[in-house]
Amino acid sequence: MTEFSRRAVLGGIGAGLAVGAVGGGVAGARVGAADAEAGTAATGAAGGTPSLGSAAVPFHGERQAGILQPAQARVQLAVFDLVPEAGRDGLRRLMQAWSATAARLAAGEPAAEFDNQVALDAGPCSLTVTFGFGASLFDKTGLAARRPEALSPLPDFPGDALDRARSDGDLWVQIGADDALVVFHALRTLQRQASGTAVLRWQATGFGRTPGATERPMTGRNLMGQVDGTNNPKPSSPDFARTVFADGPDWMTGGSYAVYRRIRMLLDNWDNLPTDRQERVIGRRKSDGAPLSGGTETTPVDLAKVNPDGTLAVAADAHVRVAAPSGNGGAAMLRRGFSYQDGLLPDGSPDAGLLFIAFQADPARGFVPVQRRLARGDSLSRFLRHEASGLYAVPPGAPEGGYVGQPLLES
Amino acid sequence: MTEFSRRAVLGGIGAGLAVGAVGGGVAGARVGAADAEAGTAATGAAGGTPSLGSAAVPFHGERQAGILQPAQARVQLAVFDLVPEAGRDGLRRLMQAWSATAARLAAGEPAAEFDNQVALDAGPCSLTVTFGFGASLFDKTGLAARRPEALSPLPDFPGDALDRARSDGDLWVQIGADDALVVFHALRTLQRQASGTAVLRWQATGFGRTPGATERPMTGRNLMGQVDGTNNPKPSSPDFARTVFADGPDWMTGGSYAVYRRIRMLLDNWDNLPTDRQERVIGRRKSDGAPLSGGTETTPVDLAKVNPDGTLAVAADAHVRVAAPSGNGGAAMLRRGFSYQDGLLPDGSPDAGLLFIAFQADPARGFVPVQRRLARGDSLSRFLRHEASGLYAVPPGAPEGGYVGQPLLES
Repeated sequence: MTEFSRRAVLGGIGAGLAVGAVGGGVAGARVGAADAEAGTAATGAAGGTPSLGSAAVPFHGERQAGILQPAQARVQLAVFDLVPEAGRDGLRRLMQAWSATAARLAAGEPAAEFDNQVALDAGPCSLTVTFGFGASLFDKTGLAARRPEALSPLPDFPGDALDRARSDGDLWVQIGADDALVVFHALRTLQRQASGTAVLRWQATGFGRTPGATERPMTGRNLMGQVDGTNNPKPSSPDFARTVFADGPDWMTGGSYAVYRRIRMLLDNWDNLPTDRQERVIGRRKSDGAPLSGGTETTPVDLAKVNPDGTLAVAADAHVRVAAPSGNGGAAMLRRGFSYQDGLLPDGSPDAGLLFIAFQADPARGFVPVQRRLARGDSLSRFLRHEASGLYAVPPGAPEGGYVGQPLLES
Repeated sequence: MTEFSRRAVLGGIGAGLAVGAVGGGVAGARVGAADAEAGTAATGAAGGTPSLGSAAVPFHGERQAGILQPAQARVQLAVFDLVPEAGRDGLRRLMQAWSATAARLAAGEPAAEFDNQVALDAGPCSLTVTFGFGASLFDKTGLAARRPEALSPLPDFPGDALDRARSDGDLWVQIGADDALVVFHALRTLQRQASGTAVLRWQATGFGRTPGATERPMTGRNLMGQVDGTNNPKPSSPDFARTVFADGPDWMTGGSYAVYRRIRMLLDNWDNLPTDRQERVIGRRKSDGAPLSGGTETTPVDLAKVNPDGTLAVAADAHVRVAAPSGNGGAAMLRRGFSYQDGLLPDGSPDAGLLFIAFQADPARGFVPVQRRLARGDSLSRFLRHEASGLYAVPPGAPEGGYVGQPLLES
């Protein structure tokens, strides 16, 4: 345990913090709606003011961390492929080692092995590590018969321009924290633990808002400048668990399916579009995210609303209309994306956009029907390029002493 | 002015903040030694607790912002080349426009033109924008006769493996803030203002510690896990101004010279080295940065100290010995680097390391003699690759109503 986390647990910073640091819940100044409503928030109850650094999200629990928590300031996606000789035993040992490390790092402790000390002075900074299994993992480990139907390959969508070298893969690891060094430290530690068992296939780094950058917690903006995520399912809604968490097969009950898309934004084109044209493409006002049918950000979109001149307030090909659950048989998913910026492409345009991540009970009732409609009818699509893709089974959380995937790998 | 900054100025968050937001100094919870000692700190004087977002660093002043302030959580380096037809008039108009924008954004206001609203909800988050002129700029603008001697090309160093496409360039822009969206917003705004005058030649993104990640402000760590920056010159030292700020020629008096090196770290090799071997390479203890000659992080290194077995406590080729000013004729510079991580190289090793940035009165008395010794005698060098390089004249700060470079461009 570092000096930082030890002091935190001993109450040096605040009693509210200690609760989080020893595993009682999400401690920290920034608790999003999903946490609070999912009942995992436990901050400042005793009057403490935990700092960004000391905020801790327990690794163990009913759900894996990194699904319901607000997107952190920094994310690292790392996808590994199992080496051929690893087999199911190798995978089991890796998931045991990875889970143990993730639990320690999430509590602000150094790793038990391979700790490079990059994060030695820092608190956990809301670190979450989330593990997922790609379809290809099951054949390599003799588990093909237990591959869930929901993990069937995503269909091709019109306009897809996927780079398979930056897509798919056996093991998906999502590392998020509010400090980039904490994220890097976790990546390197997990990577070294995988040595001989799995090799890094691709990785991507992204970012969200730093806690405190806005005056109060609010819906984030993407690199197009749009308020993005207003219509995300709320944990308080009666459909939430059914939308996000799977009810089978056995080892996946309470887990979720993560769809990943690297979506490049054609920002030079977009930024040249006048703001009112951008708003027509989206169907919301850019400044505050209010629907063009009126109201404020959280007002439900009135798709039937007609302007005085007889035109639709929300255009027929506006993003919010095409993506609306009402037009997709109720399809919905919990989006938890991050922006990315990787410099310039050879033509001088920005290699930047969205690391789209969405959790759902079944992609066939979430991402797939929505993206089918978006790819054909959404006027936003001409400003986007889907460049990479992945689908991963994200098992339920592991109890104390257990590891992620244990019900699959030990039965 | 955004709702956020307006409220801040009106005292909605704290009176201490308002001082910073309207231009009185550096406001914010994180004030580094350089600021405090340089007399630019003005935080919480009236009892406010300014948030990370509302912390503001004025653009105008004696020095450009982004030299004395602590490294922020995120940095964007963007280097532009002037288009041939721009000439001195084009450059002057660009520096006027850029300076005006940088001043607005640093105060938390939207840009007067080309604002994509990406940072609309956020405070300035300690945004600093720093401008520098490369040697190549002077020929293109008929100013070759006024190019400072100190801007002569850096010599080649043993082991250099420089990619010229990611080096040099006419106009260096360093954008730092504690929120990545705020940084991206500034980049895009400045880039669009440059349209028709200058094109982006290369860019790089990096990161430092997020404020609050550590329990108290402390020297940062690099991606090797080493405490890095202990021996940086202190503003309280009598030599500080002479070390960092130039005393001529005329238009550069009070400015500085920025040396940039993209230094990749061979982290797979490094991380495989046992900690005691790493410490011998550096000459400091990894956990706390204390010199191997004894004491704590801030204890001066005793280069003469001999172990009981007769060996040197700090090895002959240890980094701290080779870099020590005492062996380099007193050469020193103010380092303000950031870590970077850009994914994987084709061989699977991490494309990660240090965006080295150092400010000095004259590279011939700062970076050059130090790097000459390091490249030959430093045992750390075999874990580093210098992959890009730049040298830029960073003019003094501009007064209110003025712009950076005005004394050069209007005389």
